[in-house]
Amino acid sequence: MGVDFNLQREFDIIAIGRACIDLNAVEYNRPMEETMTFRKYVGGSPANIAIGISRLGLKAGFIGKLADDQHGRFIRQYMSDAGVDTSHMVIDREGHKTGLAFTEIKSPEECSILMYRDEVADLYLQPSEVSEDYIKRSKILLVSGTALAKSPSREAVLKAVQLARKNDVKVVFELDYRPYTWVSEAETSVYYTFVAEQSDVVIGTRGEYDVMENRQDGKNEETVCHLFGHSPELVVIKHGVDGSYAYTKSGEIFKGQSYKTKVLKTFGAGDSYASAFLYALIKGKDIETALKYGSASAAIVVSKHSSSEAMPTVHEIEQLISERAEEKS
Amino acid sequence: MGVDFNLQREFDIIAIGRACIDLNAVEYNRPMEETMTFRKYVGGSPANIAIGISRLGLKAGFIGKLADDQHGRFIRQYMSDAGVDTSHMVIDREGHKTGLAFTEIKSPEECSILMYRDEVADLYLQPSEVSEDYIKRSKILLVSGTALAKSPSREAVLKAVQLARKNDVKVVFELDYRPYTWVSEAETSVYYTFVAEQSDVVIGTRGEYDVMENRQDGKNEETVCHLFGHSPELVVIKHGVDGSYAYTKSGEIFKGQSYKTKVLKTFGAGDSYASAFLYALIKGKDIETALKYGSASAAIVVSKHSSSEAMPTVHEIEQLISERAEEKS
Amino acid sequence: MGVDFNLQREFDIIAIGRACIDLNAVEYNRPMEETMTFRKYVGGSPANIAIGISRLGLKAGFIGKLADDQHGRFIRQYMSDAGVDTSHMVIDREGHKTGLAFTEIKSPEECSILMYRDEVADLYLQPSEVSEDYIKRSKILLVSGTALAKSPSREAVLKAVQLARKNDVKVVFELDYRPYTWVSEAETSVYYTFVAEQSDVVIGTRGEYDVMENRQDGKNEETVCHLFGHSPELVVIKHGVDGSYAYTKSGEIFKGQSYKTKVLKTFGAGDSYASAFLYALIKGKDIETALKYGSASAAIVVSKHSSSEAMPTVHEIEQLISERAEEKS
Amino acid sequence: MGVDFNLQREFDIIAIGRACIDLNAVEYNRPMEETMTFRKYVGGSPANIAIGISRLGLKAGFIGKLADDQHGRFIRQYMSDAGVDTSHMVIDREGHKTGLAFTEIKSPEECSILMYRDEVADLYLQPSEVSEDYIKRSKILLVSGTALAKSPSREAVLKAVQLARKNDVKVVFELDYRPYTWVSEAETSVYYTFVAEQSDVVIGTRGEYDVMENRQDGKNEETVCHLFGHSPELVVIKHGVDGSYAYTKSGEIFKGQSYKTKVLKTFGAGDSYASAFLYALIKGKDIETALKYGSASAAIVVSKHSSSEAMPTVHEIEQLISERAEEKS
Repeated sequence: MGVDFNLQREFDIIAIGRACIDLNAVEYNRPMEETMTFRKYVGGSPANIAIGISRLGLKAGFIGKLADDQHGRFIRQYMSDAGVDTSHMVIDREGHKTGLAFTEIKSPEECSILMYRDEVADLYLQPSEVSEDYIKRSKILLVSGTALAKSPSREAVLKAVQLARKNDVKVVFELDYRPYTWVSEAETSVYYTFVAEQSDVVIGTRGEYDVMENRQDGKNEETVCHLFGHSPELVVIKHGVDGSYAYTKSGEIFKGQSYKTKVLKTFGAGDSYASAFLYALIKGKDIETALKYGSASAAIVVSKHSSSEAMPTVHEIEQLISERAEEKS
Repeated sequence: MGVDFNLQREFDIIAIGRACIDLNAVEYNRPMEETMTFRKYVGGSPANIAIGISRLGLKAGFIGKLADDQHGRFIRQYMSDAGVDTSHMVIDREGHKTGLAFTEIKSPEECSILMYRDEVADLYLQPSEVSEDYIKRSKILLVSGTALAKSPSREAVLKAVQLARKNDVKVVFELDYRPYTWVSEAETSVYYTFVAEQSDVVIGTRGEYDVMENRQDGKNEETVCHLFGHSPELVVIKHGVDGSYAYTKSGEIFKGQSYKTKVLKTFGAGDSYASAFLYALIKGKDIETALKYGSASAAIVVSKHSSSEAMPTVHEIEQLISERAEEKS
Repeated sequence: MGVDFNLQREFDIIAIGRACIDLNAVEYNRPMEETMTFRKYVGGSPANIAIGISRLGLKAGFIGKLADDQHGRFIRQYMSDAGVDTSHMVIDREGHKTGLAFTEIKSPEECSILMYRDEVADLYLQPSEVSEDYIKRSKILLVSGTALAKSPSREAVLKAVQLARKNDVKVVFELDYRPYTWVSEAETSVYYTFVAEQSDVVIGTRGEYDVMENRQDGKNEETVCHLFGHSPELVVIKHGVDGSYAYTKSGEIFKGQSYKTKVLKTFGAGDSYASAFLYALIKGKDIETALKYGSASAAIVVSKHSSSEAMPTVHEIEQLISERAEEKS
Repeated sequence: MGVDFNLQREFDIIAIGRACIDLNAVEYNRPMEETMTFRKYVGGSPANIAIGISRLGLKAGFIGKLADDQHGRFIRQYMSDAGVDTSHMVIDREGHKTGLAFTEIKSPEECSILMYRDEVADLYLQPSEVSEDYIKRSKILLVSGTALAKSPSREAVLKAVQLARKNDVKVVFELDYRPYTWVSEAETSVYYTFVAEQSDVVIGTRGEYDVMENRQDGKNEETVCHLFGHSPELVVIKHGVDGSYAYTKSGEIFKGQSYKTKVLKTFGAGDSYASAFLYALIKGKDIETALKYGSASAAIVVSKHSSSEAMPTVHEIEQLISERAEEKS
């Protein structure tokens, strides 16, 4: 049970993909048109996960491309200060920009994001900038689906997956589907299917698996049946407030509950979930416990203003789990 | 002396080009990496000038293209509230974004801008979205050089110039040169030369005229000699703190002094200068007075945090002029 | 009457624009699907005109960009052998291709062209590759409208026009409108209008002037009224088999008749017309005679298989004119 | 031994990729600059293979996209006349062109191709234009590597591979590497590796495998060791005049000799080899025999002027094999 990692490896996780800037509304509970001030945070799913993993005391690295400007330098400094190894974050020399996400928080239920993803530096990561020597120092390669949205980042990620498999590095695929940048859902489906089939662990929402399968209202059973015909040994499918399911190749099914909390916004829930869930797996905890860690971490982040900066410590996660356990009993 | 406008026209100025978002550092006198909060303003040279003209009590209109998102809606509302006619600001339906300018204020002498200009809505204005009926209702068509940087905005502006000339609308060309977006200075030179030759009034810094002439250290005399061989009747060349020169086709030269002030940042100086200078011309004041209006308006704006919001009233401008006149005497 | 050229200049004409390959059906009078063999010729309107001018004994030069391959080398050699100065035909180093035109000759009335114009070398001519020293050695700069269809060739041509005007070189604008490559007729209209207004002589079909004016069924009187408000002193408007009209700024109108001939195909008629018409003007003949030269040259070319190779000599043209004059009398 | 095909399937092979036009020098043994006439043939590796297979009496289909012009219509008619099912060759509606290959034959040893591959219709095949119902009617899906060079054709092919694997259709991957169109060898390597790993049969030259492995002077043993760790069961590596090797997953190695012949040009050798080799496999012949069929077919095609039109019949192949066997004995 659980996933067997190569424990000799120095890094727990190396994430690949985007590291961007979130510009979160300082004045919220209103439409963005009426928000006059924005606060800057590091954002982007794989960056958040690497920061979250590092906050939990594990060793994270990052493969990505940063703009050669003030935003790019801020991101590198912030991640480095957070304990993430940034030695393989390369600097773009062709004038590409840092991706931006302006967040609008009308209410806890109505959050939206205004993205700037045209010509962003992270999508210009080249296959030649992905190092086999680096990847093979890690237990896990964490792949974010958005990094597959465009060439040459797409090929850089595909190469990283090939190198991970060649070097006994577990591939964790966080579907992280964002419609912008992709040309069509048919295109997304092709690449998500290829990468999911070659991954060891796949994590996503039911809606994201539907995109991968290019269908609507897909069934978990069919999804896992297909994936277990290939490399995956663990598949996590999240159903929002209805909780999440973890399926193992050996046939087990685990259900995770979400923890109720005072929600400020929904951003960052998935990233905090992934980092705590993976933390627990790496620490050798059973899948049931890992699901609790994921849910607790998500509950903490959605109650706070940022995603990256709000990533909890192990103590905070375990405290919330034990408090809720006591309430129940 | 001065410029003869068609006084029957309803609009004093119709500006064409970009209306964007400035994100100004709330914490300043530091590198942007250390600025954590940004305040949102409407920006972009022609938008600032239209707002400035409107603040001065004249009637301004705008031809431009806005993103179909929260930033686009904010811009339209702000400009409309400022009194600018927004009936010819069209909405982009192809997912283009609002241009952004993050401002960094390290010190009054060291200001820089981090621009987001990839795939911005304003550069997607189509020739077919430029209305002859609208342009011919104005005394002046104000053209911003940046709108020439890329197709189809380039052709929309060239068409607007053709329509203005056909309909006895004075063309004022604010060179407003920004290197990003342009492919090369050779490209800029070609279009700046064509439009300047067909304009009635040209305004720019000495450096911008050098770009137009694709040379370095150009001489004012040669610049005006070339331009007065074509349509221009008034040419303004700004030399920063050394003041500005206005040349008329009839051979007069006027020197304008800059007013000393407590500078917070240098952004917005050119736009506030242009709006007050044109205000004075439209009001029939002589060129010497117009130069004072321009300088006074610039002095006011550089002492404040924003560009658009800081645009002064006639009273503020005239008060500063009279105060400084008293100090001298 | 006629146009005054600077007779001190070494070159009679320097043409700017495309030099391409025509692949003419060897088996004709059938759909191209059934044509199995194609014969290679140099093609492209300004190349044909330069070759035609050279065949007539005048001195022609060419500014253009050639692919770095067998087709590019063939074109340079052919034009050089034809007497055209090729010293300013630059070689593309970025892998662009030679434009191609497969001609289909179903019948003399039904000819069509299958064009290859994507990423062609001629449209990559840079403004920096246009030499003022070269242009000022010529009496005439001949501009082909198609070279305005795309950047950077567009800017190279606009720069050439600016340099010609600065150096007392007459600008002859052959509208040469081809819909492919242009984004829209609105775009074409903007550039055609600007260049026509700045030219000394404009030559085109009625349909091409309609594209320039972005209208349908335009009237010659309105066209010339507009153009004579700017630089042009001579405007030629062709009406196919109904003949052509030449208008002068001083108010004269000349009508040219087309000569009947055994038509093989219609390609090349315009280019042969232009070269002979300009030859006559340069030689100081009156406009009426120049129109005859143009028509005679066109009549000769449409009866032959190629465009470039069929360009007639002065003797052939004058013989046809005198034969037809005798037939009439 | 050999490959087990699903013999119930109606089609022997469905090929996916490009169908183009070859323009072969009529006058050869000279540089192309001196060739004045070109003869038109259908070309493109997968089209040639489909035609070759059909010439051998098997049933071939084709998935591809054709330009909506005379060349596109010629290709469809030619392939249909050759017996290939063209029901899934879709027509491009966006103005893309037919790919062209001008062939230069200086000598049998010095052949080169001048390609027109910019904006060609075949590379615009969409994933949505790939039909699962069609693919599952075939024993084999033949994938040409060049079709992976650019989106959306790339995704269409990847989807076809996923559908073939899902429906028990053998995937044959003809590496068919052409450097144009690809951004870099690193990009090629990523996709070639993914598709080769998921194929049942891989065919290519040693040089093409080196591109796949992004290395130089690769060893056959390492190549097959890697591939047999995944789906392939048969790997063919061609070493030009030194013959070819076929490796099976079960450890057998077969060496095929090339037949000496009077070579006119080298084009088409690979396509004729593949069609005859696959014909023999489908017919249940052993691998040693299949290698002979491939070599004999190649020897016939290189002695003739075209590729597609020269594809031999079974009788011609078997005659050459038996003649050569007699000569030896």
